[in-house]
Amino acid sequence: MKIKLGAKNCLYPMPTTLIDANVDGKPNYITMAHVGIIGVGAISLSMNQIHYTNAGIKENKTFSVNIPSDKMVRETDYCGLVSGKKVNKADLFENFYGQLETAPMIKGCPINMECKLIQTVDFQNYDVFIGEIVETYCDEQFMTDGIVDLSKVQPILFVMNDKSYWRIGERIAKAWNIGKGFKSD
Amino acid sequence: MKIKLGAKNCLYPMPTTLIDANVDGKPNYITMAHVGIIGVGAISLSMNQIHYTNAGIKENKTFSVNIPSDKMVRETDYCGLVSGKKVNKADLFENFYGQLETAPMIKGCPINMECKLIQTVDFQNYDVFIGEIVETYCDEQFMTDGIVDLSKVQPILFVMNDKSYWRIGERIAKAWNIGKGFKSD
Repeated sequence: MKIKLGAKNCLYPMPTTLIDANVDGKPNYITMAHVGIIGVGAISLSMNQIHYTNAGIKENKTFSVNIPSDKMVRETDYCGLVSGKKVNKADLFENFYGQLETAPMIKGCPINMECKLIQTVDFQNYDVFIGEIVETYCDEQFMTDGIVDLSKVQPILFVMNDKSYWRIGERIAKAWNIGKGFKSD
Repeated sequence: MKIKLGAKNCLYPMPTTLIDANVDGKPNYITMAHVGIIGVGAISLSMNQIHYTNAGIKENKTFSVNIPSDKMVRETDYCGLVSGKKVNKADLFENFYGQLETAPMIKGCPINMECKLIQTVDFQNYDVFIGEIVETYCDEQFMTDGIVDLSKVQPILFVMNDKSYWRIGERIAKAWNIGKGFKSD
């Protein structure tokens, strides 16, 4: 039997990311799972306008999306608990820079996506930043045969339903493949 | 060592959804994982303008986001392989309707989110539809203590890196909690 839950967002799990952006000239990190894929090569961040990071993204028009591994779950959660307005988080991680020069990236995260802000959508009290990925970095040990391997990355999946972080499980099937001939069965 | 992968989207896994919308007066389904969370109560769909479903969403200004379970992986993949332009998919699933009246929902999916189109963002050759969730439905057997339990739902996670579907694993930790006191360690 279907139960009505009210207007409840159940689009989970979502990948937990650390957004890294320069604010007042130094890196600041914010934990974000209310993200999305726009087109094929762009990412949306839905950031409440109260956050410290927004001004830095608007100023530099650059940011990075970093995928932490499960080993980083404590520091990842920490970055969502404390605001850059009150705590200087700059030294929490070692950073590196790429072609955009103003988008710091977290060296300790397995995957880093360097993004250029290309569009900002006003949505209620959120800045929805759309960033085009200009370069992606991955440490060699998280890849298999030249492909990013999430069983090695062990990303942190966010689920709002139970306010928890979850692991990824195993592969089920190939996409654009397992459904072939479904109708003829 | 960091390896440059080019401008590669690695924001995965994403939840695999079945978008259900009336097109020419009958339900049509499209598999979508390039989705996102906007604000707290809204979902973005980044739909290439070539798709059959777009016209139906524009016409009715309603759609539903359905979360299939791993048992539905074949039919879910199938809906991404064949276009409603060529194949009438209406009878593939049993549908029900809610308060919006024009947003069909797939009864067999554990979770259904009934959405009202509130904004459309033009992005390259994509219609980015932003839908506000007006009601969410979940079958009782996929809940624990009144909360949606993804270990029961067994959603299908999409990973573009290896073009595969993955399972969810187990809970790691509580969010807004495990990071408390991180700095003082």
